[in-house]
Amino acid sequence: MEETFVPFRGIKNDLKGRLMCYKQDWTGGFRAGFRILAPTTYIFFASAIPVISFGEQLERNTNGALTAVQTLASTALCGIIHSIVGGQPLLILGVAEPTVLMYTFMFNFAKDRKDLGEKLFLAWAGWVCAWTALLLFLLSILGACSIINRFTRIAGELFGLLIAMLFMQQAIRGVVEEFGIPERENPNQMSLQPSWRFGNGMFALVLSFGLLYTGLRSRKARSWRYGSGSLRGFIADYGVPLMVLVWTAVSYIPVNSVPRGIPRRLFSPNPWSPGAYSNWTIVKEMLDVPPLYIVGAFIPATMIAVLYYFDHSVASQLAQQKEFNLKKPPSYRYDLLLLGFLTILCGLIGIPPSNGVIPQSPMHTKSLATLKHQLLRNKLVSTARKSLQRNSNLSQLYRNMQEAYNEMQTPLVYQMPPALGLKEMKESTIELASSSGYIDAPVDETVFDVDKDIDDLLPVEVKEQRLSNLLQALMVGGCVAAMPLLKKIPTSVLWGYFAFMAIENLPGNQFWERILLLFTAPSRRYKVLEENHATFIETVPFKSIAAFTLFQTVYLLLCFGITWIPIAGVLFPLLIMLLVPVRQYLLPKFFKAVHLQDLDAAEYEEAPAISYNMTFEERAIDIDGGEILDEMITRSRGEIRHSQSPKITSSTPTSLEDKRSPHSPSMQRAYSPRVRELRVERSPSLSGKGLEVKKIPSPGPSNLGQSSNGSSPC
Amino acid sequence: MEETFVPFRGIKNDLKGRLMCYKQDWTGGFRAGFRILAPTTYIFFASAIPVISFGEQLERNTNGALTAVQTLASTALCGIIHSIVGGQPLLILGVAEPTVLMYTFMFNFAKDRKDLGEKLFLAWAGWVCAWTALLLFLLSILGACSIINRFTRIAGELFGLLIAMLFMQQAIRGVVEEFGIPERENPNQMSLQPSWRFGNGMFALVLSFGLLYTGLRSRKARSWRYGSGSLRGFIADYGVPLMVLVWTAVSYIPVNSVPRGIPRRLFSPNPWSPGAYSNWTIVKEMLDVPPLYIVGAFIPATMIAVLYYFDHSVASQLAQQKEFNLKKPPSYRYDLLLLGFLTILCGLIGIPPSNGVIPQSPMHTKSLATLKHQLLRNKLVSTARKSLQRNSNLSQLYRNMQEAYNEMQTPLVYQMPPALGLKEMKESTIELASSSGYIDAPVDETVFDVDKDIDDLLPVEVKEQRLSNLLQALMVGGCVAAMPLLKKIPTSVLWGYFAFMAIENLPGNQFWERILLLFTAPSRRYKVLEENHATFIETVPFKSIAAFTLFQTVYLLLCFGITWIPIAGVLFPLLIMLLVPVRQYLLPKFFKAVHLQDLDAAEYEEAPAISYNMTFEERAIDIDGGEILDEMITRSRGEIRHSQSPKITSSTPTSLEDKRSPHSPSMQRAYSPRVRELRVERSPSLSGKGLEVKKIPSPGPSNLGQSSNGSSPC
Repeated sequence: MEETFVPFRGIKNDLKGRLMCYKQDWTGGFRAGFRILAPTTYIFFASAIPVISFGEQLERNTNGALTAVQTLASTALCGIIHSIVGGQPLLILGVAEPTVLMYTFMFNFAKDRKDLGEKLFLAWAGWVCAWTALLLFLLSILGACSIINRFTRIAGELFGLLIAMLFMQQAIRGVVEEFGIPERENPNQMSLQPSWRFGNGMFALVLSFGLLYTGLRSRKARSWRYGSGSLRGFIADYGVPLMVLVWTAVSYIPVNSVPRGIPRRLFSPNPWSPGAYSNWTIVKEMLDVPPLYIVGAFIPATMIAVLYYFDHSVASQLAQQKEFNLKKPPSYRYDLLLLGFLTILCGLIGIPPSNGVIPQSPMHTKSLATLKHQLLRNKLVSTARKSLQRNSNLSQLYRNMQEAYNEMQTPLVYQMPPALGLKEMKESTIELASSSGYIDAPVDETVFDVDKDIDDLLPVEVKEQRLSNLLQALMVGGCVAAMPLLKKIPTSVLWGYFAFMAIENLPGNQFWERILLLFTAPSRRYKVLEENHATFIETVPFKSIAAFTLFQTVYLLLCFGITWIPIAGVLFPLLIMLLVPVRQYLLPKFFKAVHLQDLDAAEYEEAPAISYNMTFEERAIDIDGGEILDEMITRSRGEIRHSQSPKITSSTPTSLEDKRSPHSPSMQRAYSPRVRELRVERSPSLSGKGLEVKKIPSPGPSNLGQSSNGSSPC
Repeated sequence: MEETFVPFRGIKNDLKGRLMCYKQDWTGGFRAGFRILAPTTYIFFASAIPVISFGEQLERNTNGALTAVQTLASTALCGIIHSIVGGQPLLILGVAEPTVLMYTFMFNFAKDRKDLGEKLFLAWAGWVCAWTALLLFLLSILGACSIINRFTRIAGELFGLLIAMLFMQQAIRGVVEEFGIPERENPNQMSLQPSWRFGNGMFALVLSFGLLYTGLRSRKARSWRYGSGSLRGFIADYGVPLMVLVWTAVSYIPVNSVPRGIPRRLFSPNPWSPGAYSNWTIVKEMLDVPPLYIVGAFIPATMIAVLYYFDHSVASQLAQQKEFNLKKPPSYRYDLLLLGFLTILCGLIGIPPSNGVIPQSPMHTKSLATLKHQLLRNKLVSTARKSLQRNSNLSQLYRNMQEAYNEMQTPLVYQMPPALGLKEMKESTIELASSSGYIDAPVDETVFDVDKDIDDLLPVEVKEQRLSNLLQALMVGGCVAAMPLLKKIPTSVLWGYFAFMAIENLPGNQFWERILLLFTAPSRRYKVLEENHATFIETVPFKSIAAFTLFQTVYLLLCFGITWIPIAGVLFPLLIMLLVPVRQYLLPKFFKAVHLQDLDAAEYEEAPAISYNMTFEERAIDIDGGEILDEMITRSRGEIRHSQSPKITSSTPTSLEDKRSPHSPSMQRAYSPRVRELRVERSPSLSGKGLEVKKIPSPGPSNLGQSSNGSSPC
């Protein structure tokens, strides 16, 4: 993205780009059929559950001025608007923890002023939103988002980990509180006697750990060995919502023997309860706010604006990482403009505003990549089956498949990178077919294994469309009406879900993986090389990796520490923003430029050619039915390793087969024969100049693969 | 073992064989040093915890006539005697569940007779023991154990699975009972009010699942990536006892807020409590038993004798499976004779007798195999390091290592199979060295990787000695004195431990693995081939496997069902014994002989050559520091796959490198680059005539390996 600071130019560019694919955003979504429900449900839960919990938090903090009804309404409203008229439909909007912190601070300030008080709090908050919106407009129009490229990996990943820590903190705090007496409740009721509190706490441990464990396991269901493929797929797609249902059902097992209130369940007024909708008409009261406070509202507004600017942009950036291989353009500046409008809208109807959220946004893209993979796969498999029945030869087979693939590629008027997957598939199939020698012979299942070989051909692609975002926002809106049902979910299941969200998003975060590397025994570091790993592990000395990681960890703890300070806590985004100049001006003094580039992979420093010239095979998905796709995307979210890396010496010319297959632990379990042999010569230790990796040519996993490989026994 | 029915001949042979290695049984144990404590502690816990729990069960069932003090005393006494004068020191003795069932039945019978009653119960039980001993003497002297070879895999594994089911049943029942009111207790006490019972039950769930999960995880610690090697080794060796301590400590966390009795803890009188030792002088009362009952005692005695005959022999057999590659002779007949003496001894001092136990006995052998591997490895590594420092060439290096290996092989006068490992190591090293071409050049770490390559050379061997058995028995004896400490363990931790024992012993049981195979989706069956697997998977049609497994499952459920019948329950060993004729005469009518042989691997049917002529490489341990040894032994407990199997076509002559490395899931995670490529050509389905497996020559994992391989790219 060019860095332009000419007013409106960025917004214009964004709009132009997104308008060109706007129609396809809808048609593509509808063409996916009912399968779109898998990512939709997944994101709906990831979006709704925290929002409900934040609503409960807000209710406690604002004496009931704002409740889960308002946070859900804001999330739904902003989500619907953004999914329809927004720029990047992969971005998920919602009321986030920082917003809750901010509103809590504002409430504590307002309630003590006698000419403001609790009564005018929402009206005053409306003014804060108005000022925030103004600032966001300015940032957007003046092109502040153009420097998004300078939000390098170091800032984004640190922020991601910070969010994970906040989620985990909330999970732990939530479970601990299950042993205590909730603030609002009458401490004399039966379920709050010490004995029942103990039982409630223990039950909460069972429910939350149960959800966490089964949730994490169910996400890996595609690689299970038992059960039919469709069952496994169903569990992997819907496992987490399913587990919420299951553990909610479990929570009802001891219903006869225990008093009401055990386990504790979600608390929220129904939207039709009296008083629950007093906020909708807050705009009438806004002029009652004393002028001094109207002006003073500018101060919290600056903080919220900075927060939203950063949070919204980084969430959008994480949802559009390079390795997702997106085909549609980003829209940072226009989206920020829209966020301004949404903020003032929320302010006027007295609900807390939403912004782009982490980790839901990257989760959304990931789940859509899985969907796209399934769709592509089904199409190609049926095409290949038909060809086999017609006794085609291999080149016909590939031609048919190529046609089918092309059909799936809706022609986009605007295409960021010129349709890479398409072009490369063509090249690779031709190369594969010629080198195989089978090109003219009729093929059968033994030569071309439909189920397996097709997976080798598929690149990572994302089903980019607006439908899933719209549907999940509508479902969140539906939650407001379904409040009586939602209130059946035990709070402890919710804490388990928070822990699940925190853990689910760790793999793929290079910062996290570097922390793990520090704890890895030196004698086991070579194992990292056996998995999909980022370039820096081979090219940067261990000491530099350690120093960089320690610096980042201290910075993270600093940010985390700041959130604990009652009022200054909301400043933590400033601290993360500070990382941008630190990265650009301070770090180069301590680290070699080439190391920093590998460790931080800053786009604005990279030679543009490198980022896209990985060969098709490197991006290929090597595994059945997308079971590894999740894995691949998360493990390598950071970066898909370039074989151009100078330290990798390939002992044969890079052939089709001489590709790196992503083989992280769970993949190997799933699919060991395809694990390419990767010989690791252990140089004295990883603390030297990195490890040398030799790729030994190994026979291919499929028949086709084998015959295309020159190293058959001679 | 020859089938001899000449009186006393079997006993004589056994004695002769064991006496020849008796001295080495002790010196070998002491030479292992402090490392012997790892298997000792492991088995001590596996032995003591169930015995304590069975004691508690007995106490409830016999109104306190027998308690955990007596079961511990019996286990310790019999264990000490057996470890010193017994035949096979790998066999672990203990009071087992069937004994508890039997004594319960006897008590229920005795207490209702007015001329016997509770008072004379133990004296009458003494007579039962006397008769049992007599029958055991007869069985032993007449050589009944000679037919042990006809207890084929089908019986042993069915019995193993039955024991696992009984353990799991006890675990589940135990946890459920934590929610109820224990029989003995005063139901009015505070900790038994409904609210606290609920809390206690939930706490029990947390503790038992906590122990189960962490216990299972800690056993795999050797393959962890984090922490130093010695820490990982320590956790793997002592993880389960450690976890019992940890979860016992956790159980004390809520001590201030909860009443006494939550969580419930082990219950047992202290051995110095009044009345706890009234049984020791029971022999004086034995003549008070009416003559009719003395004669009648013969009836339960026959059942116990059959039970012990089977249980003792099968436990011993499972501890001496072929793939452990034991070097010292078995001693079935002499051990049965000794068991007779032990039974009468226990009867005379009024404690329940012990017999050989499953799963502790095979667990013992397994842990000693790990120990032996560590010892061999340390020795060879230090030898190799020394050679490298002296700049030896490869043949010198191997000669030195060979010498070191020979030193470790205590010369046995009596050797069952002529020192196989030794001979094969010699051959293999020479072959390796010559083919490598490095034979005369000085070697360095890059050519010979000490840490890794040595593992390739080590065969599975077991540290066969008497010390670990003696020590664990002494420690069990120590438990009697340490009763006040033991009583701090929560019962729920004990239930978790029961579940742990059940699950820990499933892998490697071919019956269990065939059950899993039935549930494996047809499209995933090929994955079984990618792991270490038994021959039958390739040679027997799936339908036959399924039929055989279903038959066995129905039989298992029948046996399990019988244990539920109050009195007839003790007959279940008869049902398992019945399997011997069923297997020999009935099954051959439904299955092809060749399939039966693969499915059941009956030793008496096998051509003797096949069972030991697998090449050295096939048994080699392919992995660091024994981390995989457990895996290898358990996964392949059944059988190590023979490459002679006709369906396996090797596309190059079997070279040193063309070996099957055991690559089960956790191994791959631990050590992927050594995973040899195994190309599986999927024939239409596994339901056909088995799968064809082609081994593609792949470059070796080590430098040495690579250069010895002829299939480098040409």
